[in-house]
Amino acid sequence: MSSENGSAEETAMRTALAAAEEVVGTTSPNPPVGCVVLDAGGAVVGTGATQPPGGPHAEVVALCAAGERAAGGTAVVTLEPCGHTGRTPPCSDALRAAGIARVVYAVSDRNPAAAGGARQLSDAGVQVRGGVLADEVAAGPLRSWLHAARTGRPHVTWKYAASLDGRSAAEDGTSRWISSAESRAEVHRVRARADAVVAGTGTVLADDPRLTARTPDGGLAAHQPLRVVVGDRAVPSGAQVFDDAAPTVRIPGHDPAAVLAELAERGVVEVLLEGGPTLAGAFAAAGCIDRVLAYVAPVLLGSGTAALGYAGVGSISQAWRLHVEETTMCGPDVRISAVPVPRS
Amino acid sequence: MSSENGSAEETAMRTALAAAEEVVGTTSPNPPVGCVVLDAGGAVVGTGATQPPGGPHAEVVALCAAGERAAGGTAVVTLEPCGHTGRTPPCSDALRAAGIARVVYAVSDRNPAAAGGARQLSDAGVQVRGGVLADEVAAGPLRSWLHAARTGRPHVTWKYAASLDGRSAAEDGTSRWISSAESRAEVHRVRARADAVVAGTGTVLADDPRLTARTPDGGLAAHQPLRVVVGDRAVPSGAQVFDDAAPTVRIPGHDPAAVLAELAERGVVEVLLEGGPTLAGAFAAAGCIDRVLAYVAPVLLGSGTAALGYAGVGSISQAWRLHVEETTMCGPDVRISAVPVPRS
Ligand SMILES: NC(=O)c1ccc[n+]([C@@H]2O[C@H](COP(=O)([O-])OP(=O)(O)OC[C@H]3O[C@@H](n4cnc5c(N)ncnc54)[C@H](OP(=O)(O)O)[C@@H]3O)[C@@H](O)[C@H]2O)c1
Ligand SMILES: NC(=O)c1ccc[n+]([C@@H]2O[C@H](COP(=O)([O-])OP(=O)(O)OC[C@H]3O[C@@H](n4cnc5c(N)ncnc54)[C@H](OP(=O)(O)O)[C@@H]3O)[C@@H](O)[C@H]2O)c1
Repeated sequence: MSSENGSAEETAMRTALAAAEEVVGTTSPNPPVGCVVLDAGGAVVGTGATQPPGGPHAEVVALCAAGERAAGGTAVVTLEPCGHTGRTPPCSDALRAAGIARVVYAVSDRNPAAAGGARQLSDAGVQVRGGVLADEVAAGPLRSWLHAARTGRPHVTWKYAASLDGRSAAEDGTSRWISSAESRAEVHRVRARADAVVAGTGTVLADDPRLTARTPDGGLAAHQPLRVVVGDRAVPSGAQVFDDAAPTVRIPGHDPAAVLAELAERGVVEVLLEGGPTLAGAFAAAGCIDRVLAYVAPVLLGSGTAALGYAGVGSISQAWRLHVEETTMCGPDVRISAVPVPRS
Repeated sequence: MSSENGSAEETAMRTALAAAEEVVGTTSPNPPVGCVVLDAGGAVVGTGATQPPGGPHAEVVALCAAGERAAGGTAVVTLEPCGHTGRTPPCSDALRAAGIARVVYAVSDRNPAAAGGARQLSDAGVQVRGGVLADEVAAGPLRSWLHAARTGRPHVTWKYAASLDGRSAAEDGTSRWISSAESRAEVHRVRARADAVVAGTGTVLADDPRLTARTPDGGLAAHQPLRVVVGDRAVPSGAQVFDDAAPTVRIPGHDPAAVLAELAERGVVEVLLEGGPTLAGAFAAAGCIDRVLAYVAPVLLGSGTAALGYAGVGSISQAWRLHVEETTMCGPDVRISAVPVPRS
């Protein structure tokens, strides 16, 4: 393979990655995948991404767009094409039927039911190359899905907003607004990419939040996550979380693992844990936080509610240690994304 | 003036700025100034920075280095040359005596006693240009000195280390180490640039800190800040803060403004407030924090001492709002530098 070929394929993979990003949050329990079809001369003739459950996979969408120009061409896909029949026929068959001569993918599918697509293709005489931009794809659109495939439970992002000194509300309970309009707008985009948004009864009773994903003009985003309220206390039926903007479930009890098991059964792959501090502390203590997304507002309070409640840490040696993945500004706020360091 | 001239002068100003940076912390109550002398052809022939109080100013050091090559040349200085006799004769005289034909400076000296240097020089036929890299210099080496000149009190940097959730110690009081070795090493460099390091009796009694500026091998840095312990409680005479590594003063009482007035009398320009949370809260409440330097470790605690104690804020509308100047990584930690937004 010439290096020209290689770089054209990398460019196509970036396009496929961007197409996958667009559908994150709409495909669960299926993975958000992107695909680009190049004709025999290397020109882009089709792009596609996974459609909602029951709809076609990315490869099929891209092949449809390419039509006859796919023959003798290359399919560039963010995930190894599936080789099994699920709700839709195997993608490896569709690629062969379209006359694709070469398949390039980023991440291997370790799901035993779906795996083997690459093998089937190469057995059928199709050239296959894996691992192109694998790290970007695995850390990007496929992150939560790969986590769920590996662990059997949804990927949990704990999102919170706090002052620089770690408070999520002032002494009198007021918290509107600690973080900036930019951060709040971003949180709505993050919600729209999650399958479920989780809060404790404490937050629902104190703030009466809607927990929907909204656009800057206040309208509902196209995709709404499942709303989940955890805890035993009664919540008034008139609470906004029970409005008809999105489905809502109540999960009684106090066990984070049980909450995640129930959500996994519902096909949830990405959970956005929105608090409050008691529930977040319980998830941390149970080792059920896979990513922390902190919106740190440049504000000092000096008193008020702590952003994180008791998390099972008594001494510094027991602290939950994280690794900072990325720090960016979100308007005036500092946005920190961090992932747990495995405890030794 | 040709633009070539201008960019050579800017380059020289960057060198002068770097020379000034080197002496921050050693010149108070005088400003840390840097100077570069260019000969008539524009070549660098001398560089200098302010020497400790009683020693020569930056211009004189640079002129000495340049010797006769200064004649007909240009002096590039970070602060308007002084026009008055203090402990040393006026720099404007020294520049004229050396035959300097042109003076370029960054920041004007608004100190009525020292001001007028530029005017004296231009009256004497020397070409004068001000404002070159003025913002960089004013936000950089001259920041604390300009603040003190404007307000009459030292510039206060509150430095603290905390977990992502805003705790400076775990539930059982342990705090070694929340922040990384990289952050701790940087704090020693920050201390070496301060004139005074301030802590409350609470921190001294709890941690028995040395509060000295140390090098990575554990030795003492060349410059040691004055150590200041605030509060009324007795501190054992054997406490490490009273060792002979650096001078130490005790300031009784609880009034931040009185503490700063006493330090100003001692020629202190830059104060590094190192806490703990009670004293930091009192300084915040009194409006006596001019910069916050937070070392945020990617660690979750969920309980333990809050980084900032009561700061006079009851409701979110009373929060102390800051503006983030810079966010950088310090090893694994996030270092946030922020300055107060004036309250309207
Ligand atoms: N800044 C932010 O990002 C943010 C986000 C959310 C909330 N908040 C603030 O947080 C405050 C509410 O705090 P909160 O801590 O009461 O809210 P919370 O964590 O939402 O709710 C606490 C409740 O969760 C239930 N729960 C579920 N699992 C639990 C477990 N393992 N351990 C203990 N309880 C468990 C319990 O409900 P039952 O007692 O009903 O069983 C408990 O009372 C509000 O003021 C809100 O504004 C801030
Ligand atoms: N992570 C960090 O960056 C960091 C830094 C420093 C300390 N710490 C931790 O902080 C803990 C100590 O906390 P702390 O709050 O007791 O320490 P502190 O703030 O150093 O000391 C409190 C004492 O300061 C005096 N004080 C002076 N002005 C005051 C005012 N306006 N209001 C109230 N008190 C005033 C009082 O002393 P009198 O009662 O004697 O009059 C008071 O008891 C230690 O565990 C230490 O490890 C952490």
